[in-house]
Amino acid sequence: MSPREAVIAFWATANARQWEEFAALLHPRMAYHVPQTRERAEGREGFVDVFRTWPGDWIAHVETVVADERAAFSVIRFVVDGTADTGISLFGFEGGLISSVTDWWPVPYDPPARASAWLNRY
Amino acid sequence: MSPREAVIAFWATANARQWEEFAALLHPRMAYHVPQTRERAEGREGFVDVFRTWPGDWIAHVETVVADERAAFSVIRFVVDGTADTGISLFGFEGGLISSVTDWWPVPYDPPARASAWLNRY
Repeated sequence: MSPREAVIAFWATANARQWEEFAALLHPRMAYHVPQTRERAEGREGFVDVFRTWPGDWIAHVETVVADERAAFSVIRFVVDGTADTGISLFGFEGGLISSVTDWWPVPYDPPARASAWLNRY
Repeated sequence: MSPREAVIAFWATANARQWEEFAALLHPRMAYHVPQTRERAEGREGFVDVFRTWPGDWIAHVETVVADERAAFSVIRFVVDGTADTGISLFGFEGGLISSVTDWWPVPYDPPARASAWLNRY
């Protein structure tokens, strides 16, 4: 399975709550990292637990996947209980398995005054 | 020039303020998009102006590049006037030139209460 295929399977099995198939994509010693909150989870068991216990009736709509031989990014629209957030994930691989996941959750903000007149709000 | 090489040249020429070489990487009808602020800039001229007029003595340290044949992601540490922000960019390509750039700026936040005991703060 290529990194691209693994990322597509990652989100498909997560959405289907197929936790055995989900775990089979992961390296036993994988690391999960959320830089914005300075949180980590170590190991496959913990990572699956984070997903398995995520509250709400959520679904991840995959918008973009970019992958090379060693790593991949995905952008998802994470919909839960009527709200939608953008999630960006960086996946590292080792021996064909996902060995690291780094998640970012960028939220809307008001732009500062811009020096360039070319930026337009919509 | 591959998408990976183009992204590395993009940040190198931006850091060096080599705006002619920077512009040469870009498609004339490129689009710039900042989803968090709902801002857009249309066209190469506008995009170069956004970068050229960006305030402060900034430098982008490239931390990660993932690229396939059609698109690329970069993660940068954007240092300006003693502060550092994480920037994530998605690059689209057309005819070997960068035809779209989408930027996200995820900032720190306090995590909510977690259902899983496996997430640890550092």
